Amino acid sequence: MSLLNQIEKKEKVKNSLFQKDFLLTWEKSDMELKIILELAILLKQFREQNISPKVFDSGLAVSIFRDKSTRTRFSFASAANLLGLAVQDMDEEKSQIAHGETVRETANMISFLTDIIGIRDDMFLGEGNKYMREVGDALNEGFKEGVLPTRPGIVNLQCDMDHPTQSMADLLHLQQYFGSLESLKGKKIVMSWAYSPSYGKPLSVPQGIIALMSRYGMDIKLAYPEGYELIPEIVNIARTNSEKSGGTFNISHSMTEAVKDADVVYPKSWAPFQIMQQRTELLKNGDANALLSLEKACLAQNAEHKDWEYDTQKMGLTKNGDALYMHCLPADISGVSCTEGEVSAEVFEKYRILTYKEASYKPYIIAAMMFANRFQSPGQVLRKIIEGNSSRIGDFSRLAGG
Amino acid sequence: MSLLNQIEKKEKVKNSLFQKDFLLTWEKSDMELKIILELAILLKQFREQNISPKVFDSGLAVSIFRDKSTRTRFSFASAANLLGLAVQDMDEEKSQIAHGETVRETANMISFLTDIIGIRDDMFLGEGNKYMREVGDALNEGFKEGVLPTRPGIVNLQCDMDHPTQSMADLLHLQQYFGSLESLKGKKIVMSWAYSPSYGKPLSVPQGIIALMSRYGMDIKLAYPEGYELIPEIVNIARTNSEKSGGTFNISHSMTEAVKDADVVYPKSWAPFQIMQQRTELLKNGDANALLSLEKACLAQNAEHKDWEYDTQKMGLTKNGDALYMHCLPADISGVSCTEGEVSAEVFEKYRILTYKEASYKPYIIAAMMFANRFQSPGQVLRKIIEGNSSRIGDFSRLAGG
Amino acid sequence: MSLLNQIEKKEKVKNSLFQKDFLLTWEKSDMELKIILELAILLKQFREQNISPKVFDSGLAVSIFRDKSTRTRFSFASAANLLGLAVQDMDEEKSQIAHGETVRETANMISFLTDIIGIRDDMFLGEGNKYMREVGDALNEGFKEGVLPTRPGIVNLQCDMDHPTQSMADLLHLQQYFGSLESLKGKKIVMSWAYSPSYGKPLSVPQGIIALMSRYGMDIKLAYPEGYELIPEIVNIARTNSEKSGGTFNISHSMTEAVKDADVVYPKSWAPFQIMQQRTELLKNGDANALLSLEKACLAQNAEHKDWEYDTQKMGLTKNGDALYMHCLPADISGVSCTEGEVSAEVFEKYRILTYKEASYKPYIIAAMMFANRFQSPGQVLRKIIEGNSSRIGDFSRLAGG
Repeated sequence: MSLLNQIEKKEKVKNSLFQKDFLLTWEKSDMELKIILELAILLKQFREQNISPKVFDSGLAVSIFRDKSTRTRFSFASAANLLGLAVQDMDEEKSQIAHGETVRETANMISFLTDIIGIRDDMFLGEGNKYMREVGDALNEGFKEGVLPTRPGIVNLQCDMDHPTQSMADLLHLQQYFGSLESLKGKKIVMSWAYSPSYGKPLSVPQGIIALMSRYGMDIKLAYPEGYELIPEIVNIARTNSEKSGGTFNISHSMTEAVKDADVVYPKSWAPFQIMQQRTELLKNGDANALLSLEKACLAQNAEHKDWEYDTQKMGLTKNGDALYMHCLPADISGVSCTEGEVSAEVFEKYRILTYKEASYKPYIIAAMMFANRFQSPGQVLRKIIEGNSSRIGDFSRLAGG
Repeated sequence: MSLLNQIEKKEKVKNSLFQKDFLLTWEKSDMELKIILELAILLKQFREQNISPKVFDSGLAVSIFRDKSTRTRFSFASAANLLGLAVQDMDEEKSQIAHGETVRETANMISFLTDIIGIRDDMFLGEGNKYMREVGDALNEGFKEGVLPTRPGIVNLQCDMDHPTQSMADLLHLQQYFGSLESLKGKKIVMSWAYSPSYGKPLSVPQGIIALMSRYGMDIKLAYPEGYELIPEIVNIARTNSEKSGGTFNISHSMTEAVKDADVVYPKSWAPFQIMQQRTELLKNGDANALLSLEKACLAQNAEHKDWEYDTQKMGLTKNGDALYMHCLPADISGVSCTEGEVSAEVFEKYRILTYKEASYKPYIIAAMMFANRFQSPGQVLRKIIEGNSSRIGDFSRLAGG
Repeated sequence: MSLLNQIEKKEKVKNSLFQKDFLLTWEKSDMELKIILELAILLKQFREQNISPKVFDSGLAVSIFRDKSTRTRFSFASAANLLGLAVQDMDEEKSQIAHGETVRETANMISFLTDIIGIRDDMFLGEGNKYMREVGDALNEGFKEGVLPTRPGIVNLQCDMDHPTQSMADLLHLQQYFGSLESLKGKKIVMSWAYSPSYGKPLSVPQGIIALMSRYGMDIKLAYPEGYELIPEIVNIARTNSEKSGGTFNISHSMTEAVKDADVVYPKSWAPFQIMQQRTELLKNGDANALLSLEKACLAQNAEHKDWEYDTQKMGLTKNGDALYMHCLPADISGVSCTEGEVSAEVFEKYRILTYKEASYKPYIIAAMMFANRFQSPGQVLRKIIEGNSSRIGDFSRLAGG
């Protein structure tokens, strides 16, 4: 496999992902991201060819979900199982912001025989990513002090800043759809706010998308009604990435202007950055009344922008009327999952199977992150697996279904 | 093993269970049911002889429980583990009736690396089995469209119509108790309503029992107080089965008449079919007050039939006063788990261990259903396992306990 | 490995742990406890050397938690996974006292393919350990009657009387800290009550500590304010053990007197034995008002003893001002996890990493208990594993991180 050669060539230099947490895509080099993509593709091919990459005989993959999840939970569980790790959930109350001794201690208590910890903590602006780093610091100390036999790797399953397993799965989808990373150059992608009847949706997806896609020379259009700003520092990262990669980065407050000649549209609701800040403060103080008022005000603000729905007419303005529609799912589909939402039923139905495919990369992206974290030379390990001829379904692969 | 020869002989024709969901026993041929029974017995023997039928190196078995469960949950987990699959639970709110896009999408999202999906959905008449088929259709589409690398098989863990893992375990129990399927011919089994102080018990067990046992030439007596009808279409299936198999099928509203000369009695409470229909409508409309009124009316109706309790006197009317008592557990035992219930403490105690044995077949029945779904030639695979000499407990079987 | 030789030497006599539940340390012989310690150390070394002791190809380890838990839950899951068992949780409502048919039946229903059952039931005085024995009796019957293919072993994960996985991990910590079990002779350990702003903490840790450490010739000082008695029968066991082992056993109601020249201090809050008895009665009767009154009275009683906090000044009274501080975690740390608590922030911080190490032994203690329960000759099995050269992380150990 030529992919394997490419990975091995890269890791001869050095697998700098080895024993490093995966917290934000913008902390990773282009080569590191490429290794993840290539590993993910290989692992997917393995599955399709009944080759088992089960490298762990035992060991735990701990998931900490501080917000509910179905998709990411199953992706994490699938990735862990694929490599041979058993999932152990550690569900904390989602309304709690834990820091200090509790975090330090818990991080060690759940890690005595653990290889990977996946964390979702996206509720509180300024807190989620910080929490992951606190866990990481505690694990560093625990390993250094001889408490832990190994230093478990952390995978960010969504925080307040980034959603790297989502954005990397999305990037892999774009790569597969357009043929290569190189072909993304000059393609126009619209990361757009869209109307939703719900409140407080995280910023991590739009932030993750603009910060990542801007590295591949794409023309990024960030579109939203005035007042729905993202975290300014992350917008700046995207802007800088675009300059470096030879792409463009622009903000628009007009949907029709934004989607013009787009190759890709990613319509997704989010709460304004400033609101999320206020909300975090109110949650910290446990101010239930003020939270209720804030929610009401936000929903009213949202309702002024019900025209931000992606329907056939607006999709018709894209390049050849045929831009690729993307979504992290579940989408708010007008007349299906809500009365008025992010996308019309007709548009969603046209791209429905493609959104499922987009989602199907996530387990392999997570498995690739786990793999690169635990092995210095993932390419060599995968080569050995191929040579070892280990099959997922018994010795009975030719009898097996699927 | 001669059992193995029998399975291989059948599958030489064709394993028509391969890649087919197991949703209703009456959709399966006699030969298909026989393969399940034989596989279950073999898998049970394997366990007792420390032979491991772990055919999956990795892979998920997803359970969707839309109603609470202990017994079936553990049986499903045991079966999955026996074959090498890791269980991932997906617990939805039990009060919700999901359809359409939510089902289609979720079915795919949980299936990227999944081999088997087990579903319990027994709360809503006309909905549970329909839901399983919607999941199945979504999986078909996902596999056809290249979203899924394999099409996971579905095992019905109880719906509104049937409870096939229960009825098949019960059939295996009868086969073992009386010596063979053939010896069931002419035996009289009473599927009887019995009093319970609770409300809204599903119809799937009595329906599953009469529809399955009627295929083996048994004399079926369905006994209940007037007004406690089952779904008419399923009663008709049982009636037709009886005609074909050379058995009989009769309904009685008198307990004492019904149990006369019975070989087997299966006393179990259920809610009248018409009530379940009303309840489903009220639940759909979220009409809490009407639901409460309905519950009160039903409990009052139940209370008129407290004499439908299986005690020593009534069991004395059976053949030689010694009919086999069966129950899917947990039973409502008078003076033990409730004041007045389905069965007297004395009768239950006499048959207690036998009801445990009856339950002990369920993990193997589920494993057999999984196995036959994933392998074209399950007999050949099992033969290879025996030849491969793989032991469940290390290489240490002769040291191991148990 | 000389440890291995020692274990094999012991088991040549007879592994009397084989197929016996581990419910109370005082039911086990000194040699049995020593085998557990040695197995735990070996299993820990295996992990550190990437040797996999995965002796089970499949099989379930069921956990029954009738009180919440993070630490012990993860320890149990880690131990099960290390040996190759899949964890299946069976969470009952914690407020329920189940006995009789429910226990008998459930014990069998969850055990058809189960090797180990771990139980935590520490809420009700006189109930938790009794419950475990009821489960054990039911399993005995199920195995004898042919319901179960094997008799699963039970590990007590904390009851009303003892917390053997904790006390054995603590003993292993002391052994490692002081160099050997023999060196514990004559060392002074203070098992001390300490102030906590919470109510109803179980007695099992202090009881487990005094009953176990008194077997190794230690000078035990049990310290608490008047009125905070432990279960008298267990205090008597500790007293008798001390006499036999050549140690001493004394009770003190003065903290400053107690800690004088101590080698080890274990400050931990608990509820008075008499209060726990009252509470159990009120819980049985479901008397919510009386429970509330009792809680208030207890918290007020606690508040009179806020001076029972282990701070730098009190630790300064210990031997060379340098006694080992121990805790089962989480501790109530003044100014950190509560305003006023069991231990000052300064003292806790000094020993923080040591408490993590103390906790790190628990997964291996549990694994050792599982192992000794399932194999007649655990030493021989471990020797075979070493000879078999099975590595935890693929064949890639030299590439693997950690």
